[in-house]
Amino acid sequence: MTTTDAPNPATDPAAPMVPMVEVFDTTLRDGLQVEGVSATVDDKLRIAEQLDYLGVHYIEGGWPGANPKDIEFFARAAVELKLSSSTMVAFGSTRRPKGKVDDDVTLRNLLDANTSAVCIVAKSWDYHVLEALQTTLDEGEAMIADSVAFLTGAGRRVMVDMEHFFDGYKHNPEFSLRALEAAVVKGASHVVLCDTNGGSLPHEVEQIVADVYRHVGTDVTIGIHCHDDTGCAVANSMAAVRAGARHVQGTLNGLGERTGNCNLTTVIPNLQVKLGMSCLPEGRLERLTAVSNHVAEVLNRPLNPQAPYVGSSAFAHKAGLHVSAIKRARDAYEHVDPVLVGNGTRFVVSEMAGRATIEVKAEELGLTMDGPAVNQVIDDLKRLEHEGYHFEAADASLELLMRRAAGWEQNFFKVESMRVITDELPNGEFTTEATVKAWVRDTRTVHTAEGNGPVNAIDTALRAALAEAYPVLDRVHLTDYKVRILDGATATGAITRVLLDATNGERSWTTIGVSSNIIEASWRALEESLVYGLLHTEA
Amino acid sequence: MTTTDAPNPATDPAAPMVPMVEVFDTTLRDGLQVEGVSATVDDKLRIAEQLDYLGVHYIEGGWPGANPKDIEFFARAAVELKLSSSTMVAFGSTRRPKGKVDDDVTLRNLLDANTSAVCIVAKSWDYHVLEALQTTLDEGEAMIADSVAFLTGAGRRVMVDMEHFFDGYKHNPEFSLRALEAAVVKGASHVVLCDTNGGSLPHEVEQIVADVYRHVGTDVTIGIHCHDDTGCAVANSMAAVRAGARHVQGTLNGLGERTGNCNLTTVIPNLQVKLGMSCLPEGRLERLTAVSNHVAEVLNRPLNPQAPYVGSSAFAHKAGLHVSAIKRARDAYEHVDPVLVGNGTRFVVSEMAGRATIEVKAEELGLTMDGPAVNQVIDDLKRLEHEGYHFEAADASLELLMRRAAGWEQNFFKVESMRVITDELPNGEFTTEATVKAWVRDTRTVHTAEGNGPVNAIDTALRAALAEAYPVLDRVHLTDYKVRILDGATATGAITRVLLDATNGERSWTTIGVSSNIIEASWRALEESLVYGLLHTEA
Repeated sequence: MTTTDAPNPATDPAAPMVPMVEVFDTTLRDGLQVEGVSATVDDKLRIAEQLDYLGVHYIEGGWPGANPKDIEFFARAAVELKLSSSTMVAFGSTRRPKGKVDDDVTLRNLLDANTSAVCIVAKSWDYHVLEALQTTLDEGEAMIADSVAFLTGAGRRVMVDMEHFFDGYKHNPEFSLRALEAAVVKGASHVVLCDTNGGSLPHEVEQIVADVYRHVGTDVTIGIHCHDDTGCAVANSMAAVRAGARHVQGTLNGLGERTGNCNLTTVIPNLQVKLGMSCLPEGRLERLTAVSNHVAEVLNRPLNPQAPYVGSSAFAHKAGLHVSAIKRARDAYEHVDPVLVGNGTRFVVSEMAGRATIEVKAEELGLTMDGPAVNQVIDDLKRLEHEGYHFEAADASLELLMRRAAGWEQNFFKVESMRVITDELPNGEFTTEATVKAWVRDTRTVHTAEGNGPVNAIDTALRAALAEAYPVLDRVHLTDYKVRILDGATATGAITRVLLDATNGERSWTTIGVSSNIIEASWRALEESLVYGLLHTEA
Repeated sequence: MTTTDAPNPATDPAAPMVPMVEVFDTTLRDGLQVEGVSATVDDKLRIAEQLDYLGVHYIEGGWPGANPKDIEFFARAAVELKLSSSTMVAFGSTRRPKGKVDDDVTLRNLLDANTSAVCIVAKSWDYHVLEALQTTLDEGEAMIADSVAFLTGAGRRVMVDMEHFFDGYKHNPEFSLRALEAAVVKGASHVVLCDTNGGSLPHEVEQIVADVYRHVGTDVTIGIHCHDDTGCAVANSMAAVRAGARHVQGTLNGLGERTGNCNLTTVIPNLQVKLGMSCLPEGRLERLTAVSNHVAEVLNRPLNPQAPYVGSSAFAHKAGLHVSAIKRARDAYEHVDPVLVGNGTRFVVSEMAGRATIEVKAEELGLTMDGPAVNQVIDDLKRLEHEGYHFEAADASLELLMRRAAGWEQNFFKVESMRVITDELPNGEFTTEATVKAWVRDTRTVHTAEGNGPVNAIDTALRAALAEAYPVLDRVHLTDYKVRILDGATATGAITRVLLDATNGERSWTTIGVSSNIIEASWRALEESLVYGLLHTEA
């Protein structure tokens, strides 16, 4: 197979110039097929907000009917989400073989999700119709035609994921095109060519999409949906766009079954910065790194530091010798300006903050710091980050560290000792109880509290100790608790990093604790969280 | 830029048919630029053995002179390694500007490494010659010519990495080609076109390599060296091969600076299985997954489960409905046979699992399960996954659950009660102590142990209780401990999911525990881990 000579709208001035490529995100449906991740409905709502903030055209929210959680998602999304950039899409499939559209449960669930747009999967490889569905090719075609007609008749914008399109086309192009035409004729707005098994290569995709483009022209938007089984999902998607596709499906951070889906955090900047196509609304691309990190955080699935554009190593330079050269002529050493995607250049040799950074931060906090105090901060950061602290993620702990370096000491309370006991009783029940002995404004207090776990118990006991002196703590709530095991290879003896998020309703903050003892790490983060709350919450 | 119309030896029968593509591995040089990894000389020797076992043509061992460890590596490699498939290559650079080859330290070190082949980096972007080297283009050309002549004169096979070739060619093709010719004229065996900043896209690479191929023909082997900054390193390397390159540089597992180098574990099977080129000796491709895992292990850098071909998820199937269909017609669901690369199909069990999946799994485990037992498993999975369990990630817990449904009960030990106490003393020190009361083979035991955290303490106490009866547990080690807070929004009162990895040196397994009490969750996972170890470790 040779490369295509089809009209190429991306580069050929004679072809119709359509610089917009739609971004269709399927993180919440196909992306969650990734092994080892499961998301609650709340997680999914938080991710949908991020996608809207980024500005993708479509958010595929899930498959109502295949999954009860997804029914709940669409119900809550309709009420709770205020999408300003994105259109929510429900996913489903064509009707069953020999069935009727009117009494098809899948299609009914799809309508019940109440989204303006829907996406249905349709079989476009003859083998799968004949063998997997055990039906005829005529019936395979009718399943698509009937289902699209039913959904457009119900007022929906209908996109059709042509499953196994590339493999099907290689075996029997005639049937694959028939399946595609069935969707177009009945009013589908998009036909999305899927490389479902992920085995295709860019030159094949470019050729086949060009064939389809010659066939259907501009009657319908051609979409592309790739998986990364040859490590070419991004390249395949770009090859499709070069051949005429104007709609790219993928997931944030390349989440997805097996090797993952096309990574939107890579393909969006490739299309936008390198090929000059428009994918996101003006000014949104620079949110990419933050959104990518946020979603990784929600799913507790650390972002690959090597990820193109958004990874923490993506613009990290190691060679100390070249730092000044890089500063002089950035574009001779970096393929794009990292600021465009909300990332930044990082010099690994001097990765710790220099004086300038600390001074800027002190000014921001309204702290007066002399030279020795700044040096103290730099030393503390070096030592603590070496132990496993990560202050980038814990603004409040950084502020307290800087205040201490400037001579400040917290005098709200002083803990004398703490004890937490967890028991498994012979009947298998667990109980946990914590005792905190503390000095609060010259008064010694001893408080014991139960909790549904050790961290919950010490939180409750410490708050009990402080409640009378500091009623303002009533307004301080912990909102999130994250645990990361560093160097998991030493298993239960490993270092633990705890991040604790809190809010007083006006501002939110994060504190950090690190220790080989998870209770100690949690306790450090908890103490600092309450101190920060007392410092910044007005009575 | 349109796609190339150059003669394409991969697909054009009129072009000279050269089905061999050389694999040049630079894991030990460029790969070790990856952030967060450092390798000892021993590590490097072990990796070189793996590369030879895999059968790559060239192993770039390091840069003697830039790094004293690399001088030691070449000295020891010459004595200790018995390479049967691969040729060792030392890396260096051209002579300094205005310098002489005879007294150039870099070139001297290169010869001292005593390898039959060497690879030197040469500047082929005019900007870098003029600005970074601060010299003239004529001198830039002479540096290449002199250095190649010197090294070929010393009897070496000389490959030249043309640094920044693609960026240079886009700005000033004339100089880039001059640089390249200087190497060819002086007898370089290979000119390797490098996308040093990693910003190129496949259609550009294909076009430029085709231009170079038209220019130099078959006088020299054209090589390709890509970085993954656009997520296209593999696709770019394949585009180069399609345009005439016959030598691919890359690293195992895509290790490398920033976003990494071209991943050889992806590009080799792509070239060999998909394009029918010969890369490795007969019978070696099936070693790919083992070598990839071995190298990840040596560098203590876990393999990405999503990695194409070699990742643990690369051929994992989730959809319960399709299990029977997949068994019937594997090539309709898998893009290649995983056995070709030494990997295997895996059926992942989750709450979505149907009867077929459970039955396949039972067969795999050698369990006899009747209808009610299978139903019991399905019910248990639904209920537990709703509570936050996630069995897909915990094969051992799944097996124990299935055994229990089939009527099995573990009778290795029974825990009567457990208590764990964590104290913060007035001096700020933390101590943790656990007591476990258990019945082991009709004997009641009470054991207390300290630990550097509550989970470590209960692990130690329970093992103490079991040590006498089950000395085999000495061989069971915990290898990883992961904590995930589900629904973090309720903070310290949230549900906790613990995953525990363990090994007995022959097999590895994962267990899971879920509870609002992190101690209980850890304890559940720990008990199951030891039970599984007792079940599967021979005395």
